[in-house]
Amino acid sequence: MFREKIKVLDCTIRDGGLINNHYFTDEFVRAVYKSLSEAGIDYMEMGYRASRMLSPEANYGPWKYCDDDKISRIIDGIESNTKISIMVDAHRVKEQQFKPADQSPVDMIRVATYVKDIDKAIAMLNIAHDLGYETTVNIMAASIEVEKDLIEALDQLAATPAEVVYIVDSYGYFYCEQIEYMANLYRQHLPGKELGIHCHNNQQLAFANTVEAIIQNVNYVDASLYGIGRGAGNCPLELVMGFLKNPKFSLTPILKVIEDYMIPMLKEMEWGYLIPYMVTGILNRHPEAAISYRKTPDKDKYAEFYEKIRDSLDSL
Amino acid sequence: MFREKIKVLDCTIRDGGLINNHYFTDEFVRAVYKSLSEAGIDYMEMGYRASRMLSPEANYGPWKYCDDDKISRIIDGIESNTKISIMVDAHRVKEQQFKPADQSPVDMIRVATYVKDIDKAIAMLNIAHDLGYETTVNIMAASIEVEKDLIEALDQLAATPAEVVYIVDSYGYFYCEQIEYMANLYRQHLPGKELGIHCHNNQQLAFANTVEAIIQNVNYVDASLYGIGRGAGNCPLELVMGFLKNPKFSLTPILKVIEDYMIPMLKEMEWGYLIPYMVTGILNRHPEAAISYRKTPDKDKYAEFYEKIRDSLDSL
Repeated sequence: MFREKIKVLDCTIRDGGLINNHYFTDEFVRAVYKSLSEAGIDYMEMGYRASRMLSPEANYGPWKYCDDDKISRIIDGIESNTKISIMVDAHRVKEQQFKPADQSPVDMIRVATYVKDIDKAIAMLNIAHDLGYETTVNIMAASIEVEKDLIEALDQLAATPAEVVYIVDSYGYFYCEQIEYMANLYRQHLPGKELGIHCHNNQQLAFANTVEAIIQNVNYVDASLYGIGRGAGNCPLELVMGFLKNPKFSLTPILKVIEDYMIPMLKEMEWGYLIPYMVTGILNRHPEAAISYRKTPDKDKYAEFYEKIRDSLDSL
Repeated sequence: MFREKIKVLDCTIRDGGLINNHYFTDEFVRAVYKSLSEAGIDYMEMGYRASRMLSPEANYGPWKYCDDDKISRIIDGIESNTKISIMVDAHRVKEQQFKPADQSPVDMIRVATYVKDIDKAIAMLNIAHDLGYETTVNIMAASIEVEKDLIEALDQLAATPAEVVYIVDSYGYFYCEQIEYMANLYRQHLPGKELGIHCHNNQQLAFANTVEAIIQNVNYVDASLYGIGRGAGNCPLELVMGFLKNPKFSLTPILKVIEDYMIPMLKEMEWGYLIPYMVTGILNRHPEAAISYRKTPDKDKYAEFYEKIRDSLDSL
């Protein structure tokens, strides 16, 4: 697949940071930036810009805050065309500070939101847009929203300056026909805007759904090194590199940073396809129950976990 | 997805046997049969019916030969509607013996073949059919065949009594658009026959491609427990169970046998998504080079392996 307009965004540090409270070392973040730059990746997401008042520094590493000067030190001296993005949670807003874009190493601000917080998200994206940043809105957990509410949020976003709106399969629930449906729905209500895709790998469908979105003319594609990310993780960047034929991309630097850093990291951090994540995925549930279960001695009692989660959905 | 005609075939013992030369214990094979029976799986493939003259008994476990009396002892006393299939390689034919179907525990004989051996495959399927077995032909490595030759083989098969012809993505190369193309091609040249799908997981696409095939009205679906199979393995059966809505299927027994047997087995046997298998997949190559590489001390030198395999394709 070759389409000039396709932009690949690596969310290794941002989504991976949800596993380790954003405590990645400077050495690792710099190595990732270097490899993404060599591979021709369009964007690297460094983490969140969270408020220290709501998320105290005692509990989190530096990529929870993504201070401009911290980012500047990491990328200093590395030749690169890779732009920097950071994410902001619309539902956890307080005191987030943004300098004007021309005084910051950050190029793009991505606003993550639930449908219910769409007004907060729009307020924040307007601030970011007015400061000169590229902006996106990433509507999380699209698979559990009432469609009428989702459409209302999309209609609101149509009138904003957001360049890109992302379809986010937070629970890893969707398969290809649902991705096609969502892409058509988003496009219909967001005339003239670019669409993005962010998948989770609970059913080993993150890459396949990303390909389906690309077929549906979605041009902004999230992926991460060896699929790192909370729970079952994300779409593996190396697979996206194998699929896209744009000669600006190169696979070798991606494979190198995976062998040097990601494989050793798997000994200390857990992500990827595991049955408890599959279970929450097929049941369209937040992975939190599975993440907690994986920290107990029963972590491999799959049948018991499945029946417990399935039956907990029974209600009148 | 609910469609009455969909039949699920578990190939755990057969394709998994390619990793360990078919040395699974009787206890394990019996546990798999019991769980598949409880889960409502339509077929269990026990292994190969190979000739002891071509494949000496000193080198292989019992599931290379699948003797009728061995199978009978394994399934004895277990209540089940699960039918038994075995596979025969058309290109390794000598002295394979089949009793008449009504004197054998085997219900279905699947003939695996390359396009070049299609005449041997047809001869064998005619023997099996005349003895009363259900028959399928599984054309391996469809992704590297010249389409004209493949079509000629399909046209030959159209005139045989084979009930099912399988699309086999031996190298894990295909993505959804190619599966759709192949399903249409096979259907066009095999009027009135059922189609089957057998995928490998080199690009984490085995389940997604199986779903795509089901969307394209393919009704025979291969899968295995936790995706066990040579190299990157197969489509995970548990994901197929999560996707199909036929109430005859049950997920819990599948999860139980995975936790009891497959997870411990992963400590001694390797299968699943690993970068060397991804590399052979995206380059449309047999996984043998990756399987060999995984047995060397360099097994995690991904960048080097990729460049070596990629450059070995250069030729005039």
